[in-house]
Amino acid sequence: MTYRVGVVGGGQLARMMIAPAVELGVEIRVLAEAEGMSAALAATAVGDYHDADTVLAFARGVDVVTFDHEHVPQPVLRALVDAGVAVHPGPDALQFAQDKILMRTRLAELGVPQPDWAAVSDADGLQEFVDAHGGRAVVKTPRGGYDGKGVRVVSHGTEAADWFAALAEDAHGGRLLVEELVDFRRELAQQIARSPRGEIVAYPVVETIQRDGVCSEVLAPAPGAGGRLEDVASAMAGDIAEGLGVTGMLAVELFETTDDRLLVNELAMRPHNSGHWSQDGALTSQFEQHLRAVLDLPLGLTAPHSPWTVMVNVLGGPAEGGLAERVPAAMAAHPGAKIHLYGKDPRPGRKVGHVNVAGDELDEVAYEARAAAAHFG
Amino acid sequence: MTYRVGVVGGGQLARMMIAPAVELGVEIRVLAEAEGMSAALAATAVGDYHDADTVLAFARGVDVVTFDHEHVPQPVLRALVDAGVAVHPGPDALQFAQDKILMRTRLAELGVPQPDWAAVSDADGLQEFVDAHGGRAVVKTPRGGYDGKGVRVVSHGTEAADWFAALAEDAHGGRLLVEELVDFRRELAQQIARSPRGEIVAYPVVETIQRDGVCSEVLAPAPGAGGRLEDVASAMAGDIAEGLGVTGMLAVELFETTDDRLLVNELAMRPHNSGHWSQDGALTSQFEQHLRAVLDLPLGLTAPHSPWTVMVNVLGGPAEGGLAERVPAAMAAHPGAKIHLYGKDPRPGRKVGHVNVAGDELDEVAYEARAAAAHFG
Repeated sequence: MTYRVGVVGGGQLARMMIAPAVELGVEIRVLAEAEGMSAALAATAVGDYHDADTVLAFARGVDVVTFDHEHVPQPVLRALVDAGVAVHPGPDALQFAQDKILMRTRLAELGVPQPDWAAVSDADGLQEFVDAHGGRAVVKTPRGGYDGKGVRVVSHGTEAADWFAALAEDAHGGRLLVEELVDFRRELAQQIARSPRGEIVAYPVVETIQRDGVCSEVLAPAPGAGGRLEDVASAMAGDIAEGLGVTGMLAVELFETTDDRLLVNELAMRPHNSGHWSQDGALTSQFEQHLRAVLDLPLGLTAPHSPWTVMVNVLGGPAEGGLAERVPAAMAAHPGAKIHLYGKDPRPGRKVGHVNVAGDELDEVAYEARAAAAHFG
Repeated sequence: MTYRVGVVGGGQLARMMIAPAVELGVEIRVLAEAEGMSAALAATAVGDYHDADTVLAFARGVDVVTFDHEHVPQPVLRALVDAGVAVHPGPDALQFAQDKILMRTRLAELGVPQPDWAAVSDADGLQEFVDAHGGRAVVKTPRGGYDGKGVRVVSHGTEAADWFAALAEDAHGGRLLVEELVDFRRELAQQIARSPRGEIVAYPVVETIQRDGVCSEVLAPAPGAGGRLEDVASAMAGDIAEGLGVTGMLAVELFETTDDRLLVNELAMRPHNSGHWSQDGALTSQFEQHLRAVLDLPLGLTAPHSPWTVMVNVLGGPAEGGLAERVPAAMAAHPGAKIHLYGKDPRPGRKVGHVNVAGDELDEVAYEARAAAAHFG
């Protein structure tokens, strides 16, 4: 017997599941969107994840199907479940990651603190929300947004006219999500793993630093996060994981408001950029933990093995030449930095790698991680 | 540009290079002896490493050829070099790992402390050495031995008659290596990495515990090894790496004698069982370091990130059922243990996996590692 995990999607999150799978003796198979993707080494199939037959064929012979992303359509997910395939996270959980209005509605039912929000179907409705929230608000397309895409700050109801027009043709109904602009001190992320049997483990809450709507840096743990903040964040994430029936890794992106509240910003039901630090900073990385959780194996300890770990993303890559050419200088200058490259070609704004540095002094660790990552810019 | 490493041999050492290769964005290709071996995920070819054409074809398109083992014949290695392939470690270094009499001769030239030894060609010669060393000695076949194979303790010259007979037909000359039985307190191992440009980094010296001639446990660092012991061991390993022209990882197995000397027992020019602790205990694992060294990239820091790491081998595996069946109970009881399985079928005495545990207290760490590994016995 060998444990076999099938991952739909061949991006860097699937790629980063390969290392712990190999170490644990777990066979990992990937359904990639195309040849030569990040997770190509483990790609046993190339095909379209929108096609149920393709995904069903891929799923044959694996113990569980899990995901590199949250975009597999509900009918495909349901077809897997109907065929008796274990799917983690399952369609009932994933719907909340696929539709931000459903997510906000469900979190409201659960009583989880979140920004003021509304589902609006036209410019007048949007204008009304904006007027009631200080003249500005954040509009989001409920489906398909990520890394700042599908997010817009508006002060007039007319500024989302194009999105309303596009949504009018959408089968899911033509509403946009609008949220108050939260007055926040910083952004945090709380990761948690939950297995089908209901075992839950929480990671330390981390601080995430965004640039142009994209995560650029993570400080683990979040400075000053001991005690109450950590307790509140992990309890919230636990409530969400149970309330939404999430299995595998769940990331809860949080606003820490200027008046000391924690409000849920976004959810991700998969390994997440805010947890890449755990590869080199925690006893069990989020990628190993995700494999253990979706296989319903006992979960691993999440304790950091250094006081601080800082993760800095490599975004875009060098304007000239490839990433590999920068490796020697980065390694020479930063022999303690852990360099992770995703096998992707550089392109402006694209996540092509990250650097982790762990150590005793936050200032030094952060400096080292930034300086090492800068070699790849 | 992508760095490409070709590894000859598909065993667990090649397998454990996969994880750091994937993380660093290094393409790894393996020439496996057969289908379904430990490193099958990265196997781009299956073939006989004794055949120069097979290895030459495999080597096309990689930046460097390195090894899972030291058994590739010299003519094959020379053919690679002649074809302009970078080979690390190269044939001049590997000859000392392939022939223990050559190794002893060279270490003697370098003035490295080692047990008394002799190359003997018949029972009389062996008897003479035994008589001069207290009536007992260790006889070794100079070529092909590993994990206690090809090693015999004798008290009479006639006890190696079968080996002398076999060697009489060997092209390398019919001599056996005989060594004094060293009165040792414990066994240690010193690992070092050396790159083609001559950069050297040493790992902490570790204590290795053998059972029936096979490594069963490693304590990292060796208890009480700070200061002089560490300095002497790393200086010896550095002298050997330079003196023998080793590139990549070198493991120097040492006897710590009852009168406080360090004597070289064996050498291994590849990642080594005594360094598996580094996967979960050091900033740069021996597998990442080996890749960096053979690619002539700058080397990584070797510092441990916990005071103690203990590695316990899984030898043989369960008498009934597979290893995977034991994973849930092991994980449940030991959530902080790092379990490594090699994808090999259980067989008495075979190395099929290992467990690493890191932490602050040696007693607790060792207990945890032994208890977790025992689940797989």
